[in-house]
Amino acid sequence: MSVTTPRGFRAAGVSAGLKEGGAADVALVVNDGPHAGAAGVFTNNRVKAAPVLWTQQVVQGGLVRAAVLNSGGANACTGPGGFQDTHATAEHTAAVLTAVAPGSSLGAGEVAVCSTGLIGERLPMDRLLPGVRTAVGTLSQDGGPAAAEAIMTTDSRPKNGVAHGAGFTVGGMAKGAGMLAPAMATMLSVLTTDAVADPETLDAALRAACRVTFDRVDSDGCMSTNDTVLLLASGASGVVPTEAELTAVVTAVAHDLAQQLVADAEGATKQITIDVVGAASEDDAVEVGRTVARNNLVKTALFGNDPNWGRILAAVGTTAAAFEPERVDVAVNGVWVCRDGAAAEDRSKVDLGGVDVTICIDLRAGAAAATIWTNDLSHGYVHENSAYSS
Amino acid sequence: MSVTTPRGFRAAGVSAGLKEGGAADVALVVNDGPHAGAAGVFTNNRVKAAPVLWTQQVVQGGLVRAAVLNSGGANACTGPGGFQDTHATAEHTAAVLTAVAPGSSLGAGEVAVCSTGLIGERLPMDRLLPGVRTAVGTLSQDGGPAAAEAIMTTDSRPKNGVAHGAGFTVGGMAKGAGMLAPAMATMLSVLTTDAVADPETLDAALRAACRVTFDRVDSDGCMSTNDTVLLLASGASGVVPTEAELTAVVTAVAHDLAQQLVADAEGATKQITIDVVGAASEDDAVEVGRTVARNNLVKTALFGNDPNWGRILAAVGTTAAAFEPERVDVAVNGVWVCRDGAAAEDRSKVDLGGVDVTICIDLRAGAAAATIWTNDLSHGYVHENSAYSS
Repeated sequence: MSVTTPRGFRAAGVSAGLKEGGAADVALVVNDGPHAGAAGVFTNNRVKAAPVLWTQQVVQGGLVRAAVLNSGGANACTGPGGFQDTHATAEHTAAVLTAVAPGSSLGAGEVAVCSTGLIGERLPMDRLLPGVRTAVGTLSQDGGPAAAEAIMTTDSRPKNGVAHGAGFTVGGMAKGAGMLAPAMATMLSVLTTDAVADPETLDAALRAACRVTFDRVDSDGCMSTNDTVLLLASGASGVVPTEAELTAVVTAVAHDLAQQLVADAEGATKQITIDVVGAASEDDAVEVGRTVARNNLVKTALFGNDPNWGRILAAVGTTAAAFEPERVDVAVNGVWVCRDGAAAEDRSKVDLGGVDVTICIDLRAGAAAATIWTNDLSHGYVHENSAYSS
Repeated sequence: MSVTTPRGFRAAGVSAGLKEGGAADVALVVNDGPHAGAAGVFTNNRVKAAPVLWTQQVVQGGLVRAAVLNSGGANACTGPGGFQDTHATAEHTAAVLTAVAPGSSLGAGEVAVCSTGLIGERLPMDRLLPGVRTAVGTLSQDGGPAAAEAIMTTDSRPKNGVAHGAGFTVGGMAKGAGMLAPAMATMLSVLTTDAVADPETLDAALRAACRVTFDRVDSDGCMSTNDTVLLLASGASGVVPTEAELTAVVTAVAHDLAQQLVADAEGATKQITIDVVGAASEDDAVEVGRTVARNNLVKTALFGNDPNWGRILAAVGTTAAAFEPERVDVAVNGVWVCRDGAAAEDRSKVDLGGVDVTICIDLRAGAAAATIWTNDLSHGYVHENSAYSS
């Protein structure tokens, strides 16, 4: 149930002292092959952390033999020195891995680096580099769960997932509990597979999977500087799936992890699914769903168990999607509280007592649909984000 | 210090029983002339309340002799019946005003209507129409402050303003404490002037004033269905200002009222001024300021007295404005905590103990600038908006 479930991978998670309190903060995932194909998807934020700038280059080469991830510091907005720190981390990881397996000769350019934590501060390299050495020493085929724990920040629990194809497996881990949005939840995720696939196929599968999973989580509308999703393929199964098969299984794991991210969102008391149907295009459906997901008045109403469809309609009205205001229908937990843009069924029929809330918005403008996942805006969110520097 | 300060206006504020508890909820502003020129600016939301649809048509005629405003119900998302209610309100107001001053012969098409309160419910016309009659009976040249009280919803205090030109005066009132944004704070405002001006001049002056005042308040990023700003001109001063003179004085009152709106934002503990300088264009500066103003992580950090410039930079990075991430400078309350996109002065030097916070973002990409006003995201905001249906 982790990144080490597919054959050909080892992982580790150790404490290097980057976080206060001694929790694990350095994770390492190593692809033992025989192949080392890789793909990556990164934040759209123009302010990109040093490890994102580095790993984008690494992934362009199509070969990734190891991914080293740290929590306890984002290494974002750290200037040229921060980039040198990332480079040094990759070089050190490659050197230590080569030293323990002399025949392997790993280069820094095959090591992906990811960081998460506070923005704007340099990483304590005097602790991080020894931590990498410790991680290499504890690499194991059962190390996936430990790696998933080491990338946690405000996450309340580690996030692992696995799905099986015909003769091959995809595993994954993710972190993320806030700054979740928009074109990719703010998060780090490493997906692994023992399928045989070239980098182009991996890239196509990963992009297709992210588009309908991580990209449709919108917790708080805030886009991170560090978002990274990697897909590493060992080829150890010897099985060559079609692109469609691989995409389906990667999507299953990404979906599972995305749901775990939303469920663990900072301070959330509700998990909200926004189904937009009857849209003229999928883009319209995504825009409407995302806009409603980001609306603080909708989010606070749901925190207060108020099926406030008027706020939902007011949010829909700010989009450029095709719809007529007097033809929109809205259901909250199955009760059509709004039809033709006006009050319909009695809002008191809506039961908002549970954790799960489903909003269905029928734009009655076409046949396209999309789903966005979000959560409510609670006292807990305000508390956590006014107290935690990130 | 109100809409009745300029000559030629009477106003009233009465309780019609629309709100629970008997607070005033119907306001009336009457232009006694000799002129009745008017201009209006309305919400950009595609889901427009019935009174907005009505008043847009009224203002197009360029003549407005009375504005009737109610709190206790937005009359938004109420279907064709809701529009008929607005029409009936205008007709009743015109009829009652004509009855008490038989020579005047007022038509419904000269009566602007504004509503604010809960979305999605019909107004109790059996209470509203008698309330209009009561308001007509209490019209007075000192009635401005009473009118300003009658349009309050979650406002903690009424908002009035006045400014003087050479021989003419502009007065105003406004309501608004939440759903404040983006292209116009969610609000109702009536501005009055005794200047002599044709509708085209009034329209130009009002649009120019709103663009740099109400349009630059972004409290919670949520755009309303009911936003309306009216400018009514009586011509009673006999003075014909230039368009520039009129614009300057209207802008002064709108600025004053906009600041009062931000200061009264729901649950806010900080008043935040975001100065964006060094932008390649004013549009870029507005986009950057607005994006930072809407970022929940920035807003919660400031609630927690945390000068978290990393979150500010992460927000700037999501815009399309011209800038280089490694050349942006950020100051919080005068301390340049970020230079060249990385940490600079010690963030502990920033004093966030007071109510006022000024963030200066220098994009170093040009000479344009803009200011956006916002507030923090507090427990009070969550409380108020999870408990209050609007």
